[in-house]
Amino acid sequence: MPTYKAPADEMLFLLNDVFHIERYSNLPGFSDASPDIVAAILGEAAKFSEEVIQPLNRVGDTEGCTRHSDGSVTTPKGFKQAYDQFVAGGWIGISAPAEYGGQGLPGTLTVAVNEFLASANMAFTMYPGLTQGAIAAILMHGSDEQKARFLPPMVTGTWTGTMNLTEPHCGTDLGLLRTKAVKQGDGSYKITGTKIFISAGEHDLAENIIHLVLARIEGAPAGTRGTSLFIVPKVLLGPDGKLGARNPVTCGSIEEKMGIHGNATCVLNYDGATGWLIGEENRGLQAMFTMMNEARLGVGTQGLAQSEVAYQNAVAYAKERLQGRSISGAKAPDKPADPIIVHPDVRRTLMTIRAINEAGRALVVWTALRADVAYRSDDEKERQTADDHMGLLTPVIKGVLTDLGFANAVMAQQMYGGHGYIAEHGMDQFVRDARIAMIYEGANGIQALDLVGRKLGKDAGRAVMAFFNEVQDFIKENGDDAMKPYVAPLGEALGHLQQATMWFMQNAMAKPDNAGAGSYDYMHLFGLVALGYMWAHMVKAAQQKVASGDGEALKAKLVIGRFYMERVLPETAAHLKRIQAGAASTMELPAEAF
Amino acid sequence: MPTYKAPADEMLFLLNDVFHIERYSNLPGFSDASPDIVAAILGEAAKFSEEVIQPLNRVGDTEGCTRHSDGSVTTPKGFKQAYDQFVAGGWIGISAPAEYGGQGLPGTLTVAVNEFLASANMAFTMYPGLTQGAIAAILMHGSDEQKARFLPPMVTGTWTGTMNLTEPHCGTDLGLLRTKAVKQGDGSYKITGTKIFISAGEHDLAENIIHLVLARIEGAPAGTRGTSLFIVPKVLLGPDGKLGARNPVTCGSIEEKMGIHGNATCVLNYDGATGWLIGEENRGLQAMFTMMNEARLGVGTQGLAQSEVAYQNAVAYAKERLQGRSISGAKAPDKPADPIIVHPDVRRTLMTIRAINEAGRALVVWTALRADVAYRSDDEKERQTADDHMGLLTPVIKGVLTDLGFANAVMAQQMYGGHGYIAEHGMDQFVRDARIAMIYEGANGIQALDLVGRKLGKDAGRAVMAFFNEVQDFIKENGDDAMKPYVAPLGEALGHLQQATMWFMQNAMAKPDNAGAGSYDYMHLFGLVALGYMWAHMVKAAQQKVASGDGEALKAKLVIGRFYMERVLPETAAHLKRIQAGAASTMELPAEAF
Repeated sequence: MPTYKAPADEMLFLLNDVFHIERYSNLPGFSDASPDIVAAILGEAAKFSEEVIQPLNRVGDTEGCTRHSDGSVTTPKGFKQAYDQFVAGGWIGISAPAEYGGQGLPGTLTVAVNEFLASANMAFTMYPGLTQGAIAAILMHGSDEQKARFLPPMVTGTWTGTMNLTEPHCGTDLGLLRTKAVKQGDGSYKITGTKIFISAGEHDLAENIIHLVLARIEGAPAGTRGTSLFIVPKVLLGPDGKLGARNPVTCGSIEEKMGIHGNATCVLNYDGATGWLIGEENRGLQAMFTMMNEARLGVGTQGLAQSEVAYQNAVAYAKERLQGRSISGAKAPDKPADPIIVHPDVRRTLMTIRAINEAGRALVVWTALRADVAYRSDDEKERQTADDHMGLLTPVIKGVLTDLGFANAVMAQQMYGGHGYIAEHGMDQFVRDARIAMIYEGANGIQALDLVGRKLGKDAGRAVMAFFNEVQDFIKENGDDAMKPYVAPLGEALGHLQQATMWFMQNAMAKPDNAGAGSYDYMHLFGLVALGYMWAHMVKAAQQKVASGDGEALKAKLVIGRFYMERVLPETAAHLKRIQAGAASTMELPAEAF
Repeated sequence: MPTYKAPADEMLFLLNDVFHIERYSNLPGFSDASPDIVAAILGEAAKFSEEVIQPLNRVGDTEGCTRHSDGSVTTPKGFKQAYDQFVAGGWIGISAPAEYGGQGLPGTLTVAVNEFLASANMAFTMYPGLTQGAIAAILMHGSDEQKARFLPPMVTGTWTGTMNLTEPHCGTDLGLLRTKAVKQGDGSYKITGTKIFISAGEHDLAENIIHLVLARIEGAPAGTRGTSLFIVPKVLLGPDGKLGARNPVTCGSIEEKMGIHGNATCVLNYDGATGWLIGEENRGLQAMFTMMNEARLGVGTQGLAQSEVAYQNAVAYAKERLQGRSISGAKAPDKPADPIIVHPDVRRTLMTIRAINEAGRALVVWTALRADVAYRSDDEKERQTADDHMGLLTPVIKGVLTDLGFANAVMAQQMYGGHGYIAEHGMDQFVRDARIAMIYEGANGIQALDLVGRKLGKDAGRAVMAFFNEVQDFIKENGDDAMKPYVAPLGEALGHLQQATMWFMQNAMAKPDNAGAGSYDYMHLFGLVALGYMWAHMVKAAQQKVASGDGEALKAKLVIGRFYMERVLPETAAHLKRIQAGAASTMELPAEAF
């Protein structure tokens, strides 16, 4: 059976030593996040993840969710009790505003906790995760009355939330959606249509489910400019605010999926269900977009989370499985064979995963801190810079950490040989669960297009120029001998990224296919540079701690950072070359030739 | 539901126009393989694959195999009838010697047919596939009596075969195996032990199953030098040669796996089962090794096969799914959106898969032809050269085509967005089925070690030098303008491969970890060069056909070949750089630091 130990120490190293969370104490909520409070929260989150929901991960996979003939859905055995514990712990609202029952702590803490939860049990974590997304949407776009009515039970978790975008013929291209909203005399709307792929769409964990639904108001313009966002509760509220009649929104079926079986992915049928407009008419897509950064950061974290738990289990197996002898001489001569961790190709695999995970976590934490600045700072300029960062890095984190997270889970599974293919070891579940993160919340190809087509050129390239300058400045300021092995390759990789950016500027205006054909490589090139930058920061922090005599355990960081530069980063040159090849051979064949 | 159309035309292009099968007519069996016979056989194989077993692929996945309390196993619905048809068609023995009931045709034809079958239904195809492996072992190492007794029913398929190597504590390192063989007075042995991961280990398709079992004869030396190979039939033969008593070898359980559910992967318990030594005592491993080239070529083909069928379905979806508009202007203005094949990133994905599949198929066919020479030529020098080629390219084909085949299946699944994650579309089955090919028949890390540790230095590098010379000569002879866009990048990639080889020669003797740490990159670097060489050949053949006015349809090859050179091949530089980084950062941390 797989195991999991939440990397709380890693997280504290990032928060305290690399990103100096104490520097943010001027932001609301951060003064309550003293180092000991943060450590205590992470410790509790680790415990809950390891002891309560990790043991349910395989149960969720094998048992899945069950839809009954009346449309109700039962979650896997143990999920309900675990969820009750989760609610009792107040976890959903740790970063939500105090006025709605939250603890108002930094959003960064929620992001950190969510990594642990997603490693332990991704399918379970999606229930509260989607609730957090819905809370964010209502906070940002809801009326005061809507906030007062819906947020408190969602913040505690007695109600959960969902996002309803996709329809059978309409995924990425939301302008095609057909779900209809008809205005009623009392200001409410009747919603009719079919939504698919609705995670946590129906279940037995909570008293009520608050669906956020994209629909088209009768007579609205065609395309994306005619979509509006609605709040549609599963159970309507009586005039006393208590739960009343069932709203006609029902689960038509549960999808049979490759993974995340513990989460009920529903077809939801809206048959004239009562809903209320949230935000402005025909501005539904904008309302969705403002919360997408957070949701995408969350999905990027899921990629990292599956990679981390798969890595931990691969390490355990590699230390325990005896097979063959080290080429440099037996390491365990008293045993029938050496543990496979002695073999260089096993090491290469483990080091690759670890180098990506540790930098990936840094990238997530860094960006979560920027998100806190963007949402909480009272300095407009600071907010803008932080918002630029988030907009730029979000598609990178979502696309790159989920691609690499999946690839890493596959590599970790490979360490088990044939045993990795057998369900009982749990490695195949990590692979199957990780797979969805590359797809949902905008397939990774869409992330690449968002980055290249939307984010690069935005505000005359302000965000990307700021990122380049920041990395360049760091390289310049850290040219000493100790840092050189790290910043020299980082500088070369940054050069590749800058050349690729320049190439788009010169070649994609006249021929946009050149941007499209290179976008995926660009996203990964960007990711490699960003992860390399994170390594440079972590190495620097580790060197300082080691020099102060306080960081013996951090010496490994210097090695893993070097491995990253030598073994992971060289890929940037190939990405650049592919981008510079342009779209010609990619687009030359007519569609019929396929 | 997924569909499949066997690429018979592609195969004929390779056999006739690229590799000129007619040049092999001096070899036994090839004179019977006239172009029309070959076309007819491929046509029939295509039909069987498309019409009989492809429709059973999803049934096999969802239903799986069932073990009953008496240890018997039922295959999924429809498998038995399909298998009977397969036997009636004489497919298993098309390349087996006529004296045992085969048709004696080139082994290359079996390889070609097996690609179609494995695309249509990988789990089904493993039953006859393992039989072919067992036939090869008995042909090579069995006594005349064993051949006469066991081969005829295996060649027709009324009996099937298996390979029994793995034990719970013993996978790659076969020296650890414990299954025991005790010699009896009549010259037979009693076999006792547990074997795991036995594909096609028990089922209801055939009257008998011939298990080939690695075991240790009582008193044999420890390690690999003490293993012997045995024939252990499921049902013993009476003195009249008819089926008699049940041998005590039973299926203890069926593994619950990530994929290939239609194949029964068994734990087999041998409780004093009667077996007969095949080949010499304590030379069992050598006997296994001589048949491994073929088996590994077969598994490489499975990677290609899953990639091909996943590609075909991704293309169909990309042409049909309407979503978004082309960045260069609407392509289907009469429809609500353009088919997604207009988007450059979708094209990039499809072209990548296709460029790898077409070259992968060429590499398999080329190597299969070399295998026919190695087994059938009466010229010793020719046999040696062909055998060198096979030894060198086999780990490359197994490791690279299965890694890329899996990656391609994942990319093809990605084209479906959320629908790719839903079982009914079948894309996730391709991914799950393809996954095993990276693991079994020697995990890919072992292929890389075989290539670098064993094949490179063998006979003073004779095989690898011959390969380099061949590619170099082709490049020199084809420097004309039409070929330059292909041979120039190929030459650069070959240079990377040669530098990597040189680096190993200079750095791995004193420090073998340098070879181990670079082996995986080397295998992929080698694969990219080999696939590039295949593209150069295919492009040249296509150019000739186009020039002769006979190859309009082949013009696409010139584009796909260019795409390969521009978009796939640039990876070689990154592999070289990683190899040249050496083992230092990979091996520096102590095992406890993980």
